Amino acid sequence: MAAMQAGATIDVQIHLRKIPLLSELTDEEMVKVRADIRVRHYAKRDVVLQKGATGDSLLFLVQGQLQVVDITEDGRAIGLRMLAPGDFFGEIAVINGTMRSASVVATTPVLVALLPRATALHLFSHSPSVANQMLRFLAAKVQRDSEFRALLSIHNTAKRIYSFLELVKEQKDDEEVVENLPTHQDIANMINTSRETVTRTLLSLTQQGIIKKGTHRLIIVDPDALQKLAQS
Amino acid sequence: MAAMQAGATIDVQIHLRKIPLLSELTDEEMVKVRADIRVRHYAKRDVVLQKGATGDSLLFLVQGQLQVVDITEDGRAIGLRMLAPGDFFGEIAVINGTMRSASVVATTPVLVALLPRATALHLFSHSPSVANQMLRFLAAKVQRDSEFRALLSIHNTAKRIYSFLELVKEQKDDEEVVENLPTHQDIANMINTSRETVTRTLLSLTQQGIIKKGTHRLIIVDPDALQKLAQS
Repeated sequence: MAAMQAGATIDVQIHLRKIPLLSELTDEEMVKVRADIRVRHYAKRDVVLQKGATGDSLLFLVQGQLQVVDITEDGRAIGLRMLAPGDFFGEIAVINGTMRSASVVATTPVLVALLPRATALHLFSHSPSVANQMLRFLAAKVQRDSEFRALLSIHNTAKRIYSFLELVKEQKDDEEVVENLPTHQDIANMINTSRETVTRTLLSLTQQGIIKKGTHRLIIVDPDALQKLAQS
Repeated sequence: MAAMQAGATIDVQIHLRKIPLLSELTDEEMVKVRADIRVRHYAKRDVVLQKGATGDSLLFLVQGQLQVVDITEDGRAIGLRMLAPGDFFGEIAVINGTMRSASVVATTPVLVALLPRATALHLFSHSPSVANQMLRFLAAKVQRDSEFRALLSIHNTAKRIYSFLELVKEQKDDEEVVENLPTHQDIANMINTSRETVTRTLLSLTQQGIIKKGTHRLIIVDPDALQKLAQS
């Protein structure tokens, strides 16, 4: 096969019903989406979305892994969150007609599906299941942002790190875990502290048996102890 | 008239079509809303929404003025924003079925209309005009939050204050203004600095002829100079 161009459109059938946002569309809506959607391939480290570009489509990650990256006023790059297959992204610029507010970079080779803005906007307001999922998604984001703002107002640095773990942890099977923990430097940038402080605090939590490192995840071994530390 | 009870339900006709979120409802949707909506009166300083309470209704401010107030982890009260007649509030807890994330306090006597959660949720996903407005509102909120987070990561305090003014300013007629500027203490709490620093920085901007105080508003006399300071 010839070398693939960055962001080349490719002809591939994808299972649209496997994408949660589109899973409950009517057959009629699905026909329209299938006609309008385009699939693109990107290589590892390609920039899929560029901060500041126009928001001309809603995107879905079909295969591979992406990272949302923000660049702060003083030029530090912050890895904000990882995207997994089935996730959508780029919805804010689509809804508000504004510029992309963060960049998205491929951390593996990826397949991405692009739905033109007009089709996406029509679904947002006319498909009850899409409207419902999108509102829940945005409302959860607003809530998370407000919790994050509360976190940033904590003066004590160690407590800020405990609260950060509390905020990003999820329940998986029988465990509380943090999937795809950002690098210590990324955490430091996100919550206004130094990499050294993050490393030191996480090491101390590990030594106290409160957290432990798993494969691509952090396991919170003693959730009660962590909560107590965050609230003390 | 006898003394009115706090939050007493009163029998009053309100112009529902004057509320922007409801202005484009179908006649059928309007009949349902009119049947379900309740109007309450609150006196100045009454708490209309309590942080941590359940989100059992979507609220509209019909008359008077309200302030959204957050209490930080370490107990400081932050006046977040003012609400004006026609505004809705309490939508996040309604959408996500979570607790109220901030309190809302009456700064004048007010009339508030309450729409039960089930009716509100139905409108959110089945009325295209409501879905559309609600998505735009939440997307703008997410974008503002992300700009605010970028602002908090600025190390230089004066630059943080300049950027804060840039973020909250609006275009009104021919002027750039900040309506209902929060108190210096509230600004200080929001952007992690001291009241003294806010007062000193605003005074210096005034002396340089970049801003001036109007009635209930701050006027940005020299927007270019402010922008330059924020980006320098």
